[in-house]
Amino acid sequence: MAEPLRIALAGIGTVGAGVIRLIETNGALITRRAGRPIAITAVSARDRGKDRGVDISGYGWEDDMTAMAARGDVDAVVELVGGADGPALTLARNAIAHGKSLVTANKAMIAHHGLELAALSEQARVALKFEAAVAGGIPVIKGLREGAAANRIERLYGILNGTCNFILSAMEDTGRDFADVLAEAQARGYAEADPGFDIEGTDAAHKLAILSAIAFGTRIDFASVDTAGITRIQAADIAQAGTLGYVIRLIGIAEVDSFDENGAGGTRRLFQRVQPHLVPCGHPLAHVDGATNAVVAEGNFAGRLLFQGAGAGDGPTASAVVADLIDIARGDLGGEAGAPFSIPVAEMETMAPAPSGHRRSRAYIRFTVADRPGVLAEITAAMRDAGVSIESLIQRGRAEEGGDVMVAIVTHDGPEVGVRRALALLEGSASLSEAPLVMQILGE
Amino acid sequence: MAEPLRIALAGIGTVGAGVIRLIETNGALITRRAGRPIAITAVSARDRGKDRGVDISGYGWEDDMTAMAARGDVDAVVELVGGADGPALTLARNAIAHGKSLVTANKAMIAHHGLELAALSEQARVALKFEAAVAGGIPVIKGLREGAAANRIERLYGILNGTCNFILSAMEDTGRDFADVLAEAQARGYAEADPGFDIEGTDAAHKLAILSAIAFGTRIDFASVDTAGITRIQAADIAQAGTLGYVIRLIGIAEVDSFDENGAGGTRRLFQRVQPHLVPCGHPLAHVDGATNAVVAEGNFAGRLLFQGAGAGDGPTASAVVADLIDIARGDLGGEAGAPFSIPVAEMETMAPAPSGHRRSRAYIRFTVADRPGVLAEITAAMRDAGVSIESLIQRGRAEEGGDVMVAIVTHDGPEVGVRRALALLEGSASLSEAPLVMQILGE
Repeated sequence: MAEPLRIALAGIGTVGAGVIRLIETNGALITRRAGRPIAITAVSARDRGKDRGVDISGYGWEDDMTAMAARGDVDAVVELVGGADGPALTLARNAIAHGKSLVTANKAMIAHHGLELAALSEQARVALKFEAAVAGGIPVIKGLREGAAANRIERLYGILNGTCNFILSAMEDTGRDFADVLAEAQARGYAEADPGFDIEGTDAAHKLAILSAIAFGTRIDFASVDTAGITRIQAADIAQAGTLGYVIRLIGIAEVDSFDENGAGGTRRLFQRVQPHLVPCGHPLAHVDGATNAVVAEGNFAGRLLFQGAGAGDGPTASAVVADLIDIARGDLGGEAGAPFSIPVAEMETMAPAPSGHRRSRAYIRFTVADRPGVLAEITAAMRDAGVSIESLIQRGRAEEGGDVMVAIVTHDGPEVGVRRALALLEGSASLSEAPLVMQILGE
Repeated sequence: MAEPLRIALAGIGTVGAGVIRLIETNGALITRRAGRPIAITAVSARDRGKDRGVDISGYGWEDDMTAMAARGDVDAVVELVGGADGPALTLARNAIAHGKSLVTANKAMIAHHGLELAALSEQARVALKFEAAVAGGIPVIKGLREGAAANRIERLYGILNGTCNFILSAMEDTGRDFADVLAEAQARGYAEADPGFDIEGTDAAHKLAILSAIAFGTRIDFASVDTAGITRIQAADIAQAGTLGYVIRLIGIAEVDSFDENGAGGTRRLFQRVQPHLVPCGHPLAHVDGATNAVVAEGNFAGRLLFQGAGAGDGPTASAVVADLIDIARGDLGGEAGAPFSIPVAEMETMAPAPSGHRRSRAYIRFTVADRPGVLAEITAAMRDAGVSIESLIQRGRAEEGGDVMVAIVTHDGPEVGVRRALALLEGSASLSEAPLVMQILGE
């Protein structure tokens, strides 16, 4: 039997306990597939005595997880502590500096410091792997980095946050409103007590920024992801979308664009956006319900590839972590230099963020307006003056005397800047009870 | 710049020309991702002068493709000749014997001789890769072999033949009958002039047998795949299925079973079947239309993973071939021993085929019967006597005086053997105009 791959596990929360359970449950099978066992040498967490449903007494213990990086009996460190900076980042740097491979599920850390860590790992000729950081158990990083490696990726998009998708599909199924469903999701453990990272789109933006870098060979640019969450979506929006043949999903989308704000050809720029979209019922992403994630990559030879599965949870995330460990055990580091982002960091392109005004799409715009004469005329005049062509308009009767009225417009295909101009014309109008909500319609 | 990976290409049909076009089009990108260029050293085909839409005059030419295996300036041979045996197999054996890695899109050869070739490649410590042999451009072999490597796969199923799926979804969309749609598919190039391999299920069975071996670590057993095609499906079946909330898809399904024919616990056995199924409209596979393929793998930690994309065509197939070449160029051979089926051939389990009688499912049974009194009584009595419980029964009125009548039954969940017994009771009945058609209903 070949020597085991000896790992140290930092952080034993839900995912860490899942990794331990997986390695214990599927150990024999992992050994056959990896060609050698994966052995847990040491673990570390905040509270040694906490009941985690797995027995950690048989593994070495480190009070200070940073010490794991220096242990001579560890080949790879698994970082499941979380947080973009702080102890997780210190551990990651130290592990690589000591010649250990690093496996992490930490999307925030990779989105913010992935290039630094990748450069360090390339120098040290160790593996840096983070399949679990994006889309839980779905091997989408491997799919992009290796499976689609022969393709220029034309466009990349998907459902990257399970919490948002759970909430949106529950709103769809039950007709309930956002706050109500969020509370249920929190009670059932699908949403954090502090759900901001999820529902504001930040988590999806972290993942999109990581995927973009691999797909396009561009340096990670999390700060430029144009991010909007799902907090403003109402049950009425979902109902209107349904009437028109769409569902609403939080979509992360990225592509390389080469047009400037005036639509003239120009420098290649990186477009990255996380925003709720209307998705046509015939599109594969329209059938992605609950906490499921799905990623579509469009390659210039492969065409449209779809990867779908559980986007979170201890089992799926542990599956991705251990898949990375099996790769390392097999010696598949992704090339001799082991470039974690497919190409070496030094060759990754710095690409400025793309402006979005020239982008053409159909859009859904929801106005909440006072129920009084002339409001529709005001809105439609603004659309006309901004050159926006209206495909359909639905005004829902007010629920109560003097209450607000909802006006939902779907535009014909046109540049986004047109809608922005129309909304600028309406800004400050006494007719509007709140700022309009704009969602793009995902193309087929 | 590192030394190029030098390849020889045997067979320049649609896919071969696609590989050349891909390498020429995406060359710079491939070099960056692979860490070195992929260079075509030699090509071989039946007719040197044929117009293929790509210029092969810049590449070395071999009249006898077997000579490629011995060339000193070739690192990897790409076999795109096709056929389970004959020249393709001879080339594959020779290439490996000469220490070359082998990449192939040849599902028939891998289904029949994959274990022999894998054992040879493991001995020779070269790569044997065949991503393009299953599901075209979808990286499903990589997904199973590496992405899901930490999981015991509980069940594996999918849509593995694009031609059948094109025909079934066209029948669904247009209400036309099988022969009519097949003729159109042939005219449009979606079906071969001799479509038997596709429409009889053989092609899907080849792919299923390959995937089973990787998923379950069992020796390939193509001969035992219980295979039925789509030739007996009528427009009326699709209409009935639609009424009941299902679509019809040709599904390949495999799992490890441990029950004997009497339902008692017993030895682990391999269940492999290719058969048209009724798929509930809420299932992701129900939305897989046209020539698309999709594979679902259910892992004991990852849960349900879905891989979807173009199942055939020159671009997607070339994408898979070149992804394999990039892996080889990067030095990722799948472990030091490079086990093509995830575990070394010597460790793969020989597993007897599972009996299917004890399998429980709901089934759709279509009878074509003479329109005369007592026929329904005869059928329902046979069901009762065999212990089959009927969930719904639809009898469609005859189209013309004296014409046949269709009776479609959906059973409650029960063992398959019950349905078989009922049909045995009806065998030889003068009421039945043709043998009944049975299709299982895919579970959620």
